[in-house]
Amino acid sequence: MALVVQKYGGSSVGDARSVKRVAKRIAEAKRAGNDVVVVVSAMGDTTDELLDLAQQITPLPPKRELDILLTAGERISMSLLAMAITNLGVKAKSYTGQQAGVITDAVHGRARIVDVVPHRIRETLDRGQVAIVAGFQGVTESTNDVTTLGRGGSDTTAVALAAGLNADVCEIYTDVDGIFTADPRIVPAARKIDQVSYEEMLELAACGAKVLALRSVEYARRYNVPVHVRSSFSAHDGTLVVAAEKKSKENPMEAPIISGVAHDRSESKITVIGVPDVPGMAARIFEVVAGAGANIDMIVQNVSAAATGLTDISFTLPDGDGPATMAALTAVQGEVGFDSLQFDDQIGKLSLVGAGMKSHPGVSARLFGALRDAGINIEMISTSEIRISVVTREDSLDDAVRAVHTAFELDGVDGEAVVYAGTGR
Amino acid sequence: MALVVQKYGGSSVGDARSVKRVAKRIAEAKRAGNDVVVVVSAMGDTTDELLDLAQQITPLPPKRELDILLTAGERISMSLLAMAITNLGVKAKSYTGQQAGVITDAVHGRARIVDVVPHRIRETLDRGQVAIVAGFQGVTESTNDVTTLGRGGSDTTAVALAAGLNADVCEIYTDVDGIFTADPRIVPAARKIDQVSYEEMLELAACGAKVLALRSVEYARRYNVPVHVRSSFSAHDGTLVVAAEKKSKENPMEAPIISGVAHDRSESKITVIGVPDVPGMAARIFEVVAGAGANIDMIVQNVSAAATGLTDISFTLPDGDGPATMAALTAVQGEVGFDSLQFDDQIGKLSLVGAGMKSHPGVSARLFGALRDAGINIEMISTSEIRISVVTREDSLDDAVRAVHTAFELDGVDGEAVVYAGTGR
Repeated sequence: MALVVQKYGGSSVGDARSVKRVAKRIAEAKRAGNDVVVVVSAMGDTTDELLDLAQQITPLPPKRELDILLTAGERISMSLLAMAITNLGVKAKSYTGQQAGVITDAVHGRARIVDVVPHRIRETLDRGQVAIVAGFQGVTESTNDVTTLGRGGSDTTAVALAAGLNADVCEIYTDVDGIFTADPRIVPAARKIDQVSYEEMLELAACGAKVLALRSVEYARRYNVPVHVRSSFSAHDGTLVVAAEKKSKENPMEAPIISGVAHDRSESKITVIGVPDVPGMAARIFEVVAGAGANIDMIVQNVSAAATGLTDISFTLPDGDGPATMAALTAVQGEVGFDSLQFDDQIGKLSLVGAGMKSHPGVSARLFGALRDAGINIEMISTSEIRISVVTREDSLDDAVRAVHTAFELDGVDGEAVVYAGTGR
Repeated sequence: MALVVQKYGGSSVGDARSVKRVAKRIAEAKRAGNDVVVVVSAMGDTTDELLDLAQQITPLPPKRELDILLTAGERISMSLLAMAITNLGVKAKSYTGQQAGVITDAVHGRARIVDVVPHRIRETLDRGQVAIVAGFQGVTESTNDVTTLGRGGSDTTAVALAAGLNADVCEIYTDVDGIFTADPRIVPAARKIDQVSYEEMLELAACGAKVLALRSVEYARRYNVPVHVRSSFSAHDGTLVVAAEKKSKENPMEAPIISGVAHDRSESKITVIGVPDVPGMAARIFEVVAGAGANIDMIVQNVSAAATGLTDISFTLPDGDGPATMAALTAVQGEVGFDSLQFDDQIGKLSLVGAGMKSHPGVSARLFGALRDAGINIEMISTSEIRISVVTREDSLDDAVRAVHTAFELDGVDGEAVVYAGTGR
């Protein structure tokens, strides 16, 4: 008998019919002899509809009140799900984040879980019942105020509960079959990945793979919670996210396993042109950028042109941070002494992720070669231990993803997994 | 400076525009120097929509889960209202029933308030802020489970909070101007009542006046909370519900003040025909009726016809209790030995309510005379200290209400209140 935490997202519980379908799946897991805890998100577009209501009231709602408002969504889905399971003859009880013991800090809108005290969940399991828990929400310990964990917070709730209950596995149900080597809407030949390490999954999530929220992967890695990403529409296995040392050894030759190709269209590029090439200027610029609240990603500084003593600095940041950052930089133009600013939201980022990349030369050469052969220009490059990212024009991003996916032999052949085993970087 | 508890119903906060309008009213009360606590219901039809969702899942939802589901409605309205008030520059915080300290028993769906521990509300007032509280909901002390108080529960929340905070007045805002001498949709000449005693209000509420929930009046009477029923669409005074001894003495001659004419279409009549006229038969019949969960109102037993030794027993009950009661009685037909059952949902009830009725003879004679002159047949009669009720055909109920309203000189003249002062019953 296993203790299983299952998480169902909003698309899995979009209407009454979907709720009943999910209930059937949960009842089966329970009848198979498991202890089952279910974390559920708000139904379909509920959260967006509530946000829209708030916007009709005021453009700047107090965050404490916004959190109370948004948590109504999970309250609805969790109670309906408990009803549907009970209707199938399996006892189920639903619990709010507060009742389930999800304790957070007081940062409304993006609270962090500081503790999980799941006494009532444990008691519910001990009585042989299914426990349904509202995702995305918690409560502050000191003031008993309702908080939300931010978008993707239900994944984090599920992983945190799995850690707190020492569950055997945390199953994240979604509308796709698992993590793919690339987005199947762009690369029809993309294959489902059977296993991926926490580190690879972190890079994939950070680089645009939307299936699993980044914070939940961080949490799973810290507490070593096995996460199974799978479809709520099929019984097939999905993708197992585990510690690197637990991955089954598919490839005994220690070749660099390329996990996949992620892409991201949600960033923009700002270029500061004609910055005096004297010490401290970059520091001052990024002080201003940080002050505007922007979360910068990649940075490139050109070599100074000796004749002018001026240089250009480019960086990427989420689209939404663009306006505030441009305004903040414009305000210090006189002080810093740069010539002008450029804002470019027509960029795309491609990231190749795989363990052991750095110890296998030839990966980057093959990547750049594939893009060159496809006629795609590279604007920026950044690398980590297990990732290479490049920025291209947004309208050539799809071609770039397909070219790289093929070059690294990730395309599926008759459903068989083809594992890339490179020999030189 | 007064401490005012204001309650706004679902029709007062039907959409974002209404929420903003109500917020303005609350901000004005606060700026006028009052401490303000606001109890709010779910927006418009939210509760019905949530009930409909539950029905799509299962015809018999577990009551604990249904309570969690339904309380989502107030969570939405209370947070939106706090946002709207804050947006006007007045600080406001919203609290769930649990956070506000509304402790109830564990009877899900129609829980009774057992205690009010409004520490956080008091603190909020002490900080100079407006406290918004979700109506209709509470929490069990032992298990921390969410409960609802049943329909009309927000009125009870408001009165209970007013009692717990020792408020100066509990203002119930609604979409009408107050309590009227009759339903203005039926009697265009109906007048607003300025003051009414708890006892009279209890009779009016029990007899079909829907403006104020019966339980909230019981609560107000027990804790002596002055209740002001008024319109959220105007600044005029409404109807003040107070202890009889506090009513201002409009009528020094101790004449029976007729407060008004209530009516109710929501009851049915069951007649048990041919009951053996032996001791204990009525007791057995009403044991069976009580076992079916029916809430009976009026009972009439015909004089036994000497020739047959049989009698008929009629009683009224809410429409919804009809089917279960008929089934329960049919099951004991052999045991009790009655001939047959009749079910009649085409009845209407008219109630004349006023203090001192019993000590003023002539009231009932005038009532029956008015109905006779209007050609309306009386099927059943019941009386209390301050009320006379009669059952008529449902399709003649409106005519009956108008006839009685006129006969007791309740019709308004140029907006001036005409007080009936009868001289003989």
